[in-house]
Amino acid sequence: MELKDIGEFGFINRFAHKFDGFIKAEETGIGDDCAVIPLNETDNYVITTDLLMEDIHFLNDKISPEELGYKSLAVNLSDIAAMGATPKFSFLSIGIPPHISVEYLDAFMKGYHDLSAKYQVPLMGGDTTKSSDKLVINVAVVGQCKKTEIHLRSMAKAGDLICVTGTLGDSAGGLNVLLNNLELNAENKFLVQKHHAPEPKILEGRWLAKQKSVHAMMDISDGISSDLMHILDASAKSALIHTDQLPISETLRVVASKNNWNSTELASSGGEDYELLVTIDANDFDRLKTEYENYFSTGISSIGEVKEGQSGITWLQKGEIIEINKRGFNHFTNS
Amino acid sequence: MELKDIGEFGFINRFAHKFDGFIKAEETGIGDDCAVIPLNETDNYVITTDLLMEDIHFLNDKISPEELGYKSLAVNLSDIAAMGATPKFSFLSIGIPPHISVEYLDAFMKGYHDLSAKYQVPLMGGDTTKSSDKLVINVAVVGQCKKTEIHLRSMAKAGDLICVTGTLGDSAGGLNVLLNNLELNAENKFLVQKHHAPEPKILEGRWLAKQKSVHAMMDISDGISSDLMHILDASAKSALIHTDQLPISETLRVVASKNNWNSTELASSGGEDYELLVTIDANDFDRLKTEYENYFSTGISSIGEVKEGQSGITWLQKGEIIEINKRGFNHFTNS
Repeated sequence: MELKDIGEFGFINRFAHKFDGFIKAEETGIGDDCAVIPLNETDNYVITTDLLMEDIHFLNDKISPEELGYKSLAVNLSDIAAMGATPKFSFLSIGIPPHISVEYLDAFMKGYHDLSAKYQVPLMGGDTTKSSDKLVINVAVVGQCKKTEIHLRSMAKAGDLICVTGTLGDSAGGLNVLLNNLELNAENKFLVQKHHAPEPKILEGRWLAKQKSVHAMMDISDGISSDLMHILDASAKSALIHTDQLPISETLRVVASKNNWNSTELASSGGEDYELLVTIDANDFDRLKTEYENYFSTGISSIGEVKEGQSGITWLQKGEIIEINKRGFNHFTNS
Repeated sequence: MELKDIGEFGFINRFAHKFDGFIKAEETGIGDDCAVIPLNETDNYVITTDLLMEDIHFLNDKISPEELGYKSLAVNLSDIAAMGATPKFSFLSIGIPPHISVEYLDAFMKGYHDLSAKYQVPLMGGDTTKSSDKLVINVAVVGQCKKTEIHLRSMAKAGDLICVTGTLGDSAGGLNVLLNNLELNAENKFLVQKHHAPEPKILEGRWLAKQKSVHAMMDISDGISSDLMHILDASAKSALIHTDQLPISETLRVVASKNNWNSTELASSGGEDYELLVTIDANDFDRLKTEYENYFSTGISSIGEVKEGQSGITWLQKGEIIEINKRGFNHFTNS
């Protein structure tokens, strides 16, 4: 049997439950943005890890080493943000092929260090080794959060509003700019920047985690058409999404219209936004949005509702049911 | 500049100190078998990570998927053992090329699970992704140890005996058997088994960590000619090693003699033994050895002494200074 017949999650399901017997009640293993392990009476450590492979997650001629170093840490910090946690320690494994120079590695480490410095996260260890041909990067990050502020994917309730921070689809637009070798004018550059240097929503995640009305929370890495399904599956719920409410930046609208891209599809299934996806008690949303937007410049938008039952996502446009390309962003070499 | 001009440790030295400012006094970062982070008043968590790449660390036609799954975890548990810690949680990232089947992955996970079950270590998370052509595995393990039982590489004292558990060179002999396609008779099979399924010295590490007379401790992954230098550099000491005292198994002696291999060189520089290298107060060694060998069947041997000064390792044979191939085991594709 080939892996593509069962997919990444099909593979994980074949072994994940076999470790259940070794996991204690206060610990959370496979299936959320981070694993949760106890630290002390009030706090947990949370741990995440991400593997980035040349030609699968990045193209070496499209991203600078400094951006790649920054992004390798950023995608992990985004998982920490999704747990409402503060990043504490990072670990970097790097497999280095012969064509990578010391100057390239210095620039990579500069990008990694710049983001580390921003959140005061020390690089505590890792592994450096040869690779026969492709650059391989694995980062693991440990974060810390309050036990009372944990927001798992399983915590969505029927009636919750489904909300996202910031705007969606810019990163996928930036990838389109790169893959089509478009001219790097100001608008295209903005999108590429969102693709190469996503800002992890650490402060936003900390703030949202403290709100009693926030239930489930995760980060958006594969696109909401794919990521929201994890919340729905874990919470045994379904969802209505109003595609006209997807927050799309003015820049993406302009560039998409110029290039005949479907901005709704980029925003729903594009991936790599690294914004936060949260479900929020509908009664508290107006207060929360007002306060959130006092603190943070990027905004928070309601895009739909959590419903009873397990019928997946129903997509609406002007109140009518529509079909959406539901593949999600599954690495750009996927068929 | 090419990486081979400065080497793995030269590269690490270019950036490691830049993170010092973010590390607190009670934490230990880059430079030991594991990072050390605080857990509570009495205990620390320790964290290690290792990257294994196809054609660099393993050859797919030489190791079975079950052995590879076992070994991927074992090499990390060996680092946990070197801290005298108990393994608590593991994380697995795996990059899967198209030629790897689901049946292969099931067998890999069986080997990984078997060793996890032995030490009751749950797999808590990770990342599964595509790889364009090579199988890539990154494992991270969290362990727990007493603050009073920490044995860093920097703790060796002049006058200490340099000691190793078990026997040295069997794994390197097993690699020679594989690379030379030797017949798998009982002796050759024993050596290959030591190469493919090393037993992490968790219980031995726990026991040694509790001994007040044990000072520095680490695991032997690259061969003592390379690994001992880490202890000497961190402790600002030098060493005398009596090569006639290197513990070499009867099997390795027989196979080496039959094939004209230098068993002393395999034992000093062969790598992947995953035994423990410790420095011990000379006054307590006889008592410690007797008690150790009451608990554990594999024995502990004194092979030399820690000396003042920083003149590296002096190798002795029958009291005379000799030269040893000092490369250590630096992955089998290295020149």
